[in-house]
Amino acid sequence: MSRTLHLNAFLMGVGHHEAAWRHPRADPSRLADVRHFQELARIAERGTLDSVFLADGLAVGPAVRHNIQAVFEPITLLAAIATATEHIGLIATASTTYTEPFNLARAFASLDHLSGGRAGWNIVTSAQAREARNFNLDDHPAHADRYRRAAEYVDVAIKLWDSWEDDALVLDTAAGVFADTARVHEIDHAGERFRVRGPLNTPRPPQGRPLLVQAGSSADGIAFAARYAEAVFTAQQTLAGGQAFYSALKRATADAGRDPELVKVLPGIAPVIGGTEKEARDLADELEALIVPEHALAQLSGMTGLDLTGLPLDGPLPDLPDAGAVQSHQSRYQLVVELARRERLTLRQLIGRLGGGRGHRVVVGTPEQIADQIELWFTQGAADGFNVMPPLLPDGLEDFVDHVVPLLRRRGLFRSAYTGRTLREHYGLPRPASAYATRELVAS
Amino acid sequence: MSRTLHLNAFLMGVGHHEAAWRHPRADPSRLADVRHFQELARIAERGTLDSVFLADGLAVGPAVRHNIQAVFEPITLLAAIATATEHIGLIATASTTYTEPFNLARAFASLDHLSGGRAGWNIVTSAQAREARNFNLDDHPAHADRYRRAAEYVDVAIKLWDSWEDDALVLDTAAGVFADTARVHEIDHAGERFRVRGPLNTPRPPQGRPLLVQAGSSADGIAFAARYAEAVFTAQQTLAGGQAFYSALKRATADAGRDPELVKVLPGIAPVIGGTEKEARDLADELEALIVPEHALAQLSGMTGLDLTGLPLDGPLPDLPDAGAVQSHQSRYQLVVELARRERLTLRQLIGRLGGGRGHRVVVGTPEQIADQIELWFTQGAADGFNVMPPLLPDGLEDFVDHVVPLLRRRGLFRSAYTGRTLREHYGLPRPASAYATRELVAS
Repeated sequence: MSRTLHLNAFLMGVGHHEAAWRHPRADPSRLADVRHFQELARIAERGTLDSVFLADGLAVGPAVRHNIQAVFEPITLLAAIATATEHIGLIATASTTYTEPFNLARAFASLDHLSGGRAGWNIVTSAQAREARNFNLDDHPAHADRYRRAAEYVDVAIKLWDSWEDDALVLDTAAGVFADTARVHEIDHAGERFRVRGPLNTPRPPQGRPLLVQAGSSADGIAFAARYAEAVFTAQQTLAGGQAFYSALKRATADAGRDPELVKVLPGIAPVIGGTEKEARDLADELEALIVPEHALAQLSGMTGLDLTGLPLDGPLPDLPDAGAVQSHQSRYQLVVELARRERLTLRQLIGRLGGGRGHRVVVGTPEQIADQIELWFTQGAADGFNVMPPLLPDGLEDFVDHVVPLLRRRGLFRSAYTGRTLREHYGLPRPASAYATRELVAS
Repeated sequence: MSRTLHLNAFLMGVGHHEAAWRHPRADPSRLADVRHFQELARIAERGTLDSVFLADGLAVGPAVRHNIQAVFEPITLLAAIATATEHIGLIATASTTYTEPFNLARAFASLDHLSGGRAGWNIVTSAQAREARNFNLDDHPAHADRYRRAAEYVDVAIKLWDSWEDDALVLDTAAGVFADTARVHEIDHAGERFRVRGPLNTPRPPQGRPLLVQAGSSADGIAFAARYAEAVFTAQQTLAGGQAFYSALKRATADAGRDPELVKVLPGIAPVIGGTEKEARDLADELEALIVPEHALAQLSGMTGLDLTGLPLDGPLPDLPDAGAVQSHQSRYQLVVELARRERLTLRQLIGRLGGGRGHRVVVGTPEQIADQIELWFTQGAADGFNVMPPLLPDGLEDFVDHVVPLLRRRGLFRSAYTGRTLREHYGLPRPASAYATRELVAS
């Protein structure tokens, strides 16, 4: 198996379908039960998946009337999951716009230490005005500004993770030397937005640096990913679209002077699995029938920045501005517009198509059909793996692990056992050396 | 048992004595092992202690050469401990100066949800210039400024915890109503330093609000505690000093319009326990002999703000300025100066006295002698309980739980079993109602 798939279990409440929590097979009371999430992670680990992944946002609005809201903050939840698992990676989304690099670098270092090297950070810049208003602002900073801050932020975080060299912790009890301060470095970062002296207040984490993940697919997002990301999550509806994104990202990565092999491209996939095609279709229909239309319209309005509430559900979409004119979720916006135009969808149809995965591709079928799609994208230059978004949790994840994963293994596409212990090892990525390791700097 | 002691296990690496990590009974390699801390928490739980408590700081300096440095960030570590325990409270220190109230309120809410209502927040304002330099500043804000920010910060956090009323989570699957948005409130805070719209992005935590703990004993600190704190940690060297602080704090609390019974005063105590008085004294001597004097002098210099390095160890202390002239650790500074003057200590002697508990009271003796001291302070108006700081971990905590706790139980001073499930219940404190519960506000 020269090239292996990478599969993450994207965990979201009791399922990714927006109406999942209403379905008889879901138990929404488990949202506040940490054991639910530990159990999900153990199911994913049974399937030798690369990681569990948690999304995040820093605000709730009126949509919480009809839509499930996460109870736990991702990093604390992953710390609790870490102690219930042994191998699986732990990727949390966190914002560069509303946090300080010292605090976040430290939290991820702590998660990496707690888990023995399984932490990953999905870097987001936060896109909603509602989030800005929880952090002393009236509106969110412009798209390009957020990405400029993000770049400097990640530079600072990397310096902080590197600030303790790997062999800085001496623990010489006889001499009374805890750390070799010649190997613990002030970073003295003084940039446009941050001044951070360092060093970080924890020894270098097991992975050196947590895995860096990114999910923006706009031009700014691709440029950012080319420079920093080791895994990229993306929403792609068609094979052609997936191939175009895949090659664009790999090219941009090479142009940025990095090996494109070291950036894994992982589209989302929401598999609706049935023993037969009809069973799968029935489940998809059951879920779609549970969508609250006025909620879905409000969600779509948020995604497009246009007030679509009150429009006739069975009429066509109104004209929508180009993606360049919107300041957030640019790539997701474009995907929605293209999907609606390509398939000439009514509002109701569009809502149904988005309900399963918020713009990510929904594949409805038997385990074989799901595995075929995964193999197709993986072998045809559209994906290095997938972010798996089961419509119902835990059921949909169990179906995937018990029925799709064995097929992928049989086809030689996926591991049957973990060969490493860290998330970087699962992804086949090297452990980065500290940038300070070869230098002679004055001790802090 | 009308009035019961409250006992916290203050966890710090492999022991509170500054040279603990060098002692043969300590294993410093366990610093980065989460199971070490889970084990400590389970020992404390076996002793029906109220909580485990973690201190924190946001910088390291040259002292890391000789002094142990924590590996884990407290909130992530407590999330990992939460899943390994059932009853014990989980108190983390976190700064109001270098974090945003939305993020921290959310992290503590998440910890409270994860643990079924066992979270507590030890509110600190951060006192070191070294910390400021990790957060875009050249020096730390002045003492009074930090406390003004802290007060508004806690106001915001309380509003955020209250922003979801207790019954806001409806989970009506038939009607498709997840939350009753009439019971989820924007807080619309617009103050001197913060503008936060709210609501918080998580339902109200099990305790309503995490337990609020505070440890500043300066005038600003006491005023802050009187207004907000439900437990107060303090360093007191003498019974008379403890009594004076206890009554001052209770009086200030009453003056602030709160019931003084609802604020627990908990001095630190570092019990060095031996089967005989001589065994205990020998252990104290062993630990003292392992202190690295130049390190201890540097620590003391940091505590006093004066450069004491290079002074003769066996000479007297130089003249020290009054506490009002220092901008951080005011009360700790005063304690050190008074201790040195009262007992006419040389520098070397002072270092030895401080090594066991960084200014907290060290009691060396048999379990009976330790229990006598606890009973004395508890019954003589100097303490509602103690923050227990074992010199060695886990050994010192096991000694305390196995040999001192049984005596306290036999004397009717301490519980033999948990009677509640939440940290507030252990402390005998009510669950606060949401400030929004009786109001009719427009939904967010």
